[in-house]
Amino acid sequence: MSDNSFGHLFRFTTWGESHGPALGVVVDGVPPDLPISAEVIQRDLDRRKPGQSRYTTQRREADEVKILSGVFEDERTDGLRTTGTPISLMIENTDQRSKDYSDIRDKFRPGHADYTYFQKYGIRDYRGGGRSSARETAARVAAGAVAKLVIPDVTIRASLVQIGPHKIDYANFDWDQVDQNPFFCADPKAAETWATYLDGIRKAGSSVGAIIEVVAEGVPAGWGAPIYGKLSADIAAAFMSINAVKGVEIGEGMHAAELTGEENADQMRSDRPLPQFLSNKAGGILGGISNGDPIVARFAVKPTSSILTPRQTVTTENEDADIITKGRHDPCVGIRAVPIGEAMMACVLADHMLRHRGQTGREGGIGFGRNDL
Amino acid sequence: MSDNSFGHLFRFTTWGESHGPALGVVVDGVPPDLPISAEVIQRDLDRRKPGQSRYTTQRREADEVKILSGVFEDERTDGLRTTGTPISLMIENTDQRSKDYSDIRDKFRPGHADYTYFQKYGIRDYRGGGRSSARETAARVAAGAVAKLVIPDVTIRASLVQIGPHKIDYANFDWDQVDQNPFFCADPKAAETWATYLDGIRKAGSSVGAIIEVVAEGVPAGWGAPIYGKLSADIAAAFMSINAVKGVEIGEGMHAAELTGEENADQMRSDRPLPQFLSNKAGGILGGISNGDPIVARFAVKPTSSILTPRQTVTTENEDADIITKGRHDPCVGIRAVPIGEAMMACVLADHMLRHRGQTGREGGIGFGRNDL
Amino acid sequence: MSDNSFGHLFRFTTWGESHGPALGVVVDGVPPDLPISAEVIQRDLDRRKPGQSRYTTQRREADEVKILSGVFEDERTDGLRTTGTPISLMIENTDQRSKDYSDIRDKFRPGHADYTYFQKYGIRDYRGGGRSSARETAARVAAGAVAKLVIPDVTIRASLVQIGPHKIDYANFDWDQVDQNPFFCADPKAAETWATYLDGIRKAGSSVGAIIEVVAEGVPAGWGAPIYGKLSADIAAAFMSINAVKGVEIGEGMHAAELTGEENADQMRSDRPLPQFLSNKAGGILGGISNGDPIVARFAVKPTSSILTPRQTVTTENEDADIITKGRHDPCVGIRAVPIGEAMMACVLADHMLRHRGQTGREGGIGFGRNDL
Amino acid sequence: MSDNSFGHLFRFTTWGESHGPALGVVVDGVPPDLPISAEVIQRDLDRRKPGQSRYTTQRREADEVKILSGVFEDERTDGLRTTGTPISLMIENTDQRSKDYSDIRDKFRPGHADYTYFQKYGIRDYRGGGRSSARETAARVAAGAVAKLVIPDVTIRASLVQIGPHKIDYANFDWDQVDQNPFFCADPKAAETWATYLDGIRKAGSSVGAIIEVVAEGVPAGWGAPIYGKLSADIAAAFMSINAVKGVEIGEGMHAAELTGEENADQMRSDRPLPQFLSNKAGGILGGISNGDPIVARFAVKPTSSILTPRQTVTTENEDADIITKGRHDPCVGIRAVPIGEAMMACVLADHMLRHRGQTGREGGIGFGRNDL
Repeated sequence: MSDNSFGHLFRFTTWGESHGPALGVVVDGVPPDLPISAEVIQRDLDRRKPGQSRYTTQRREADEVKILSGVFEDERTDGLRTTGTPISLMIENTDQRSKDYSDIRDKFRPGHADYTYFQKYGIRDYRGGGRSSARETAARVAAGAVAKLVIPDVTIRASLVQIGPHKIDYANFDWDQVDQNPFFCADPKAAETWATYLDGIRKAGSSVGAIIEVVAEGVPAGWGAPIYGKLSADIAAAFMSINAVKGVEIGEGMHAAELTGEENADQMRSDRPLPQFLSNKAGGILGGISNGDPIVARFAVKPTSSILTPRQTVTTENEDADIITKGRHDPCVGIRAVPIGEAMMACVLADHMLRHRGQTGREGGIGFGRNDL
Repeated sequence: MSDNSFGHLFRFTTWGESHGPALGVVVDGVPPDLPISAEVIQRDLDRRKPGQSRYTTQRREADEVKILSGVFEDERTDGLRTTGTPISLMIENTDQRSKDYSDIRDKFRPGHADYTYFQKYGIRDYRGGGRSSARETAARVAAGAVAKLVIPDVTIRASLVQIGPHKIDYANFDWDQVDQNPFFCADPKAAETWATYLDGIRKAGSSVGAIIEVVAEGVPAGWGAPIYGKLSADIAAAFMSINAVKGVEIGEGMHAAELTGEENADQMRSDRPLPQFLSNKAGGILGGISNGDPIVARFAVKPTSSILTPRQTVTTENEDADIITKGRHDPCVGIRAVPIGEAMMACVLADHMLRHRGQTGREGGIGFGRNDL
Repeated sequence: MSDNSFGHLFRFTTWGESHGPALGVVVDGVPPDLPISAEVIQRDLDRRKPGQSRYTTQRREADEVKILSGVFEDERTDGLRTTGTPISLMIENTDQRSKDYSDIRDKFRPGHADYTYFQKYGIRDYRGGGRSSARETAARVAAGAVAKLVIPDVTIRASLVQIGPHKIDYANFDWDQVDQNPFFCADPKAAETWATYLDGIRKAGSSVGAIIEVVAEGVPAGWGAPIYGKLSADIAAAFMSINAVKGVEIGEGMHAAELTGEENADQMRSDRPLPQFLSNKAGGILGGISNGDPIVARFAVKPTSSILTPRQTVTTENEDADIITKGRHDPCVGIRAVPIGEAMMACVLADHMLRHRGQTGREGGIGFGRNDL
Repeated sequence: MSDNSFGHLFRFTTWGESHGPALGVVVDGVPPDLPISAEVIQRDLDRRKPGQSRYTTQRREADEVKILSGVFEDERTDGLRTTGTPISLMIENTDQRSKDYSDIRDKFRPGHADYTYFQKYGIRDYRGGGRSSARETAARVAAGAVAKLVIPDVTIRASLVQIGPHKIDYANFDWDQVDQNPFFCADPKAAETWATYLDGIRKAGSSVGAIIEVVAEGVPAGWGAPIYGKLSADIAAAFMSINAVKGVEIGEGMHAAELTGEENADQMRSDRPLPQFLSNKAGGILGGISNGDPIVARFAVKPTSSILTPRQTVTTENEDADIITKGRHDPCVGIRAVPIGEAMMACVLADHMLRHRGQTGREGGIGFGRNDL
């Protein structure tokens, strides 16, 4: 039991504060003999990195990852391979301007975790939220890059599908567009609308929420587990553990409430070697176990609470005060949540693949046509 | 790591299939010297019990709970008290008509877990879903009744807030109404609408989804934990682990995507002894830790997949087939999910109280006004 | 985290008190499709059962096990097979004479857990030790019987190797003798000596300690894990968790302190397909991982603390008192610890096989002769 | 579940190889607001550090610890205090001469984990054992230093009590002597004998085993837990997880086998406010729970397997070979195991204090004289 760890057989532990010297992650349970490199991890980190457009915080962090353990040189390739021992990854903080936070050191920022950490721990780490800062998510993205090595046949992609009131049009959905705009948006038309909209938000010193959709293709039927080990329950926990997330959906999600049984249950037709589902309302998961269809999940991110409008709050002495958060922040943290969502999905799936393989001795489902069953 | 266990310090493990001789739960980590009785557990079980109105399955189960361990007679009260050792609770199945399922033994029911269990385990337990049946939730409700004993100052209540397209009007919200209608609905007007609507669904042999809202009052600031131990992440996993759940929300939930920072972040004003929040968009949780406001969470339940309309499916030989599910089922499983949601919330909170007390030595927040901090 | 659970992928949870209505175990993580029967579990329980000779407690318990969940009829064999869901096993208590304990209800029995449970929980369950009674070990033996199904190629056997000062002569060691005497002793000559010795102990109302050796053959190289997941660490915890155990050894054990490096390190010679060790001082484990040689472990059981000699103690009011424990007890609990040790070894190995298979995709070592490594 | 983590509420995860750039530990669950400094951790590390006398390896490592997270400046003291978030500690490797190992890269060193890691992972990290090196224990000692901060009223000390065949004389036992000789030996006379004996061993290029005794004073009654959460089981796992350990004892240990019930069970007499035990054969633990007496445990360390005598082994091609291990090694690794044993004991106790406080709301036992119980 560790509040800073996630997963079971594939399990990672993160550490580090926003304004400490470094942050990092220890990834345990990685199978041996997988090719790995700092570059492959860096690629994912670079997608989450702040300061890449005017729509994300201007904090400048190289977010350069170092592999400190768990790898060995592979004489066959001149690269590195995993050894099965814990992989320790570290990212040094280089742009932690603690002075930015000095004028809020006695005030609780509304919508932030300042007050609740203070009540829990009796500590006020006023430097950018300390451990509750979104900088922790860099460590998740690094872990996710390792997780992807464990399940190379699975493709995990995500797209921002809503910013404020503006949703994408799924008719325009094209994965290839995701890296063509600053929003990780699969709908290029929506991206244009958002650019205008978000410029307004940014100039007003305001912020806005967003919804991210994560899709995993190539997951065979059989991953996941019943009851409390459900794949859906782990995805829900994984996404809800991301900073600022307030809602999680699988398949039809909250909308499932409005459907009838006829509309909701995905029918099947025989096909070879496996049957196919005629729709995917389930989001690829039935009874907590993958059914072979793409896993489709979404999560909603609330607007950044750091805004330029003065807000009512109290001090650590419980006296009324006003506060303006002047730090470098994201007008829409949902944007950078896209690679974070992919990373968490990868970690959940890698863990479940190992668990499934452990319990059954197989990497996927039983296949079909066993007449003797 | 156990797929059939939930929680850490307060941890329970359930067992049993729909059509086996019994089902049950072992609750571990319960503090000693708490008054307990079979009656207090039975009361919660009776609320979940099938067959209580025409809107739930007509399966008749007494759902009578037996306490097999973990208690001792309390000479002070002539009742029982907990001893700190595991509490084993058992419920015998009395109405498991296995024959009902014989004609579906070779077909996968769309929307059910039949196919995924088959792929994972190579087993086809056709008797009412076996372990994936909602009968397992009786064990959760029993565990939840024990959890409530651990946090006696917390009041947990839930209401159905949506059936199909019909939402409640929060202006009519009255907790006292919840037990006055067959829907656990806090809005008596909505309950009337639903009765008519659901009669139509039932007569058509159809089914419909629903949304349940669970509210916990009396939780002090400070429960929960950062990062992967977030109270919100555990609530999300807890709710998503319930059969048929496809979405989970905390506070503003998915709707948070549409809000601006000004609208979303709850402001604070000083009060004695603790400050107060001027709104509760956060649903009582900031940074994964309770803020002292009521915890507000919702989950969406998909429509029962067992309906009377013929559906396309395949057999265990992967041949096309049609299926009609004739068993005794709920037109809206969301109704009986209300006490289940309360139970899971209770289990999450009991666990976090014990964890918080372990790490900090306190049962709540630090209070306020510590000038030396 | 649960004080009443053991293992990770193969994980079981026990419940029940000495004088409650029943005791039991929930075994989670068992792979599907393994043949199982109540008989195969009963066979192991019968070996542990009290009252089988004059050297063990005269409490008469049928210890009849019921399988309540986790199995399904196997049409291929007319027997049962596991389904992958939790297996709940229950044993009803039939001979719990609570009156036997009424005169000790206010006194702490020296050497028992009465005082420490009282300090921890504030509860005095005077009925035969309640949860701390050795009756809990019946649940372990049942779990162990299930564990053996998971690792059918592993043979686990145990022998009592010392009672009081009397050790066996390894020159006489013969596994076939173990079930030919009431001591589970592989040395028939020692068994004769012990019979006389233990008759004296029993008639004097005294008790004596013992050492049990457990050997697992057929474990391939590669099970176990580094650092805190060491096979040896899990065996140590498993054995030390058995009632009355005060010492655990792997291979040379405590005696390793007296050896030199030349004497201790097992040399290797090439063989096909795997090299062989020329000795087994390591007890089959190097660096926490099995090396393919038999795993050899021992544990020491202290003498039963329930004896007929008056002993000094205090009451729950902290007043001096004398106590004689008149209940039905074992002059040497070490005897019945033999099947318990086997069961715990089986559980550790089953868990590590599943974990190893999960992490590496293999059920054993890599084999040999990979020139490209 | 993580092979590189230990503990539950107080939980640490170590990482790093013998010859990588660094090693470290992430300590999670540390209560907030505890004074901490790099110095207090360094002090313990310095006791374990190699190269401090001619009796330990001549590898020169500064073993300088850096605190990377989990602390904040304490304005009251100008020092640091814990924040409740994970404490990341890193130690850079500075003297990792990888070339020393080049001539053994294809041979398995007898007694080492080379062969078993190879079988498990298919990897041959020939640089000083990689992850299986005793360098990992530096991370444990750092974790232990943090653990001690959690239980400031507990005094944990250890002494080497046997080297090869030479045991200490307990009549000479004096804790103040432990830091007065290069053996951490409480018996100054034994230390003299050992110096001569070990010089012979060292000059012969041989090695020898040892036994370490660890004593924890100030533990109140009530820590620990029943069944699988036994304090004794966790101590056994903790010690057995240390490199080269082959046996663990609590109180009388293996010798308990030779005792009668009269000799073994510690009697009690009333005292204020708590009763006292008249002896401590139990080693301070009854039924897995502390009884208020000092906790006494021992573990045996096998001789270092790296010796100068040629040994028979095989190559990674399974061809016969001879091997001499010329690296810089300890003639008796048991010496440096003394601070490691203290550290592991501290970690077990810190974890159990937090768990006990979580479950019961108390930091110790219930006290005494509750007439109403």
